[in-house]
Amino acid sequence: MNKLSLEQAMQIAIDEAYKGFAFVSPNPRVGCVVLDHQGYLLSTGHHTRFGQPHAEVEALKGLSQEQLQGAHVIVTLEPCAHEGQTPSCAKMLAQMPLAQVTYGLIDPNPLVAGQGAEIIRRAGIQVNEYQGPLKNDLEEACEEFLWNFRHKKTFVALKVAQSLDGKIALKNGESQWITGPESRQRVHELRAQYDAVLVGKKTVLQDNPSLNVRHPAIQKENQVVVLDRSGDVLKNTSELNIFKTHSKDHIHILSSSNLSEALDELYNRGIRSVMVEGGGEIFASFLKENLVQRLHVFMAPVLIGQGMSWTEGFSIPSLEQKIQLKSIKTRPVGRDLHLTARI
Amino acid sequence: MNKLSLEQAMQIAIDEAYKGFAFVSPNPRVGCVVLDHQGYLLSTGHHTRFGQPHAEVEALKGLSQEQLQGAHVIVTLEPCAHEGQTPSCAKMLAQMPLAQVTYGLIDPNPLVAGQGAEIIRRAGIQVNEYQGPLKNDLEEACEEFLWNFRHKKTFVALKVAQSLDGKIALKNGESQWITGPESRQRVHELRAQYDAVLVGKKTVLQDNPSLNVRHPAIQKENQVVVLDRSGDVLKNTSELNIFKTHSKDHIHILSSSNLSEALDELYNRGIRSVMVEGGGEIFASFLKENLVQRLHVFMAPVLIGQGMSWTEGFSIPSLEQKIQLKSIKTRPVGRDLHLTARI
Repeated sequence: MNKLSLEQAMQIAIDEAYKGFAFVSPNPRVGCVVLDHQGYLLSTGHHTRFGQPHAEVEALKGLSQEQLQGAHVIVTLEPCAHEGQTPSCAKMLAQMPLAQVTYGLIDPNPLVAGQGAEIIRRAGIQVNEYQGPLKNDLEEACEEFLWNFRHKKTFVALKVAQSLDGKIALKNGESQWITGPESRQRVHELRAQYDAVLVGKKTVLQDNPSLNVRHPAIQKENQVVVLDRSGDVLKNTSELNIFKTHSKDHIHILSSSNLSEALDELYNRGIRSVMVEGGGEIFASFLKENLVQRLHVFMAPVLIGQGMSWTEGFSIPSLEQKIQLKSIKTRPVGRDLHLTARI
Repeated sequence: MNKLSLEQAMQIAIDEAYKGFAFVSPNPRVGCVVLDHQGYLLSTGHHTRFGQPHAEVEALKGLSQEQLQGAHVIVTLEPCAHEGQTPSCAKMLAQMPLAQVTYGLIDPNPLVAGQGAEIIRRAGIQVNEYQGPLKNDLEEACEEFLWNFRHKKTFVALKVAQSLDGKIALKNGESQWITGPESRQRVHELRAQYDAVLVGKKTVLQDNPSLNVRHPAIQKENQVVVLDRSGDVLKNTSELNIFKTHSKDHIHILSSSNLSEALDELYNRGIRSVMVEGGGEIFASFLKENLVQRLHVFMAPVLIGQGMSWTEGFSIPSLEQKIQLKSIKTRPVGRDLHLTARI
């Protein structure tokens, strides 16, 4: 095995962080890497579940004092200063014979920012905030948490399955399936990542989807939010699949006609992130009101021609007003492409 | 420098082949790599221009008999058996003190296929047709040539600049610019790669484009094909930019209403490949009649909403009839994505 550079170690810590995707909310995803005094990888760890040990504890467990002599701990977020549901990570690290701790992001709470670092520093350990090309990836690794903290708002992701020519269904409504099975499996991972799936009433009544997490490796009952001013969904509870796949307290029917208010209501109910899955009118409303933070597009390498475009519900007067995506990442999933970006 | 595996050497040969993109037509793009008797890279070469030396000659020139002792020549296409505009590459290779020749594709002409290999083999040199994961890339490296040979038809590529949501312009027609400057520069390379740009009459009359090759590294006057049954384009020669940027013999106005016949006419005029650049009706006609071999989509990371979809001109009755793209490759160009695929 090779010695790891700080960038390599931080990248591993970020990858670790994502392993906690399904169960840490409303905590941030955090990953941690321990290098020995020569720079060789000793261990990794991540925050696995809300209420369970933090990433630093997971990474350090089982390592001897001898192994930790002069070691370097790399963690995606500043170690916590205070006791919460778990003991203070900063205090734990301060008791170790470490040479160095590098954290990716400072605690977003200005009232405690830097305090975790200070506790460790006072123990004679060198502490640095990471400054480098992975800074943006570090932000994204806990973006729902940062958004929640900074704006006291529910984080909104939008998920679309489209053909290369931007269609989500034929004119006759047929949409199963444009994307392949690998993309659909990935969508179930995303359903587990976000606290809830959000759809419009038409999607529920016309397509009658289950909207639950169906993934061989993830046992989780997610939550469902339906925007329905009419009350039609509640009149059909016996026929609709969402009521078969979810317990009642995991289904939220919102009648507000104001999207921003609806998001506030969700935040108050403890739903810190939603993935909007349609239909077209709902997509357009969120985009028009500038309420989307992240876009997930699963793009199938197919052409459909005439059909339903998921952005048909909004228009711009000139190209200067186009919606610019940022920090775009693409990766193949089966024959499709998963493109994700910030808005 | 490391010893190269056959796959690595063939990949370099393929990359070399593409360097001839602008000037080898109607010849195939061909690249060649020479490894010494230990497997180290000695030289590379490619066919640079129609009428000029073949890739093998370019790769071997300047190498001494001593260097070539026991060498391995890797070339993307079987060395030619017969004298044409240039001497037979097979005969030249047969005179070298080589140990081995590996060619990517056998000559597509069944009347001479294998003859080049046989000439070299008779000289005591081991000759193999490459069989491996790059076979498809080898086909693509000379796909226009193979298509021409196999079908006696002009190769058709289709180029689209779209937003992520599949729009090529706003409803008001505004389309400058959806994609970024890097994509537009790449389009000029593609204009140089294909013998001609093909557009519909509306594109010429409404947008008045130049359709020439504007690229700092490429001096080439490409050809322009306009499909115009009305004769309107020829009535406006003094105002239209294509007549300013192209000599008359490089402009082809076709009045046939049958696309397949129009392509036959182009083939007879020596135009072996065209890149269709629009507008929407022309795109749809080519797709509907299944006349497109390659698609180039430049996709900008932007959302436009309501606008003109480039596939609005065709429709399918069910998703089973969707147009499936094959052999998809994506690469970033500036902030955009260049997606290319076979149809």
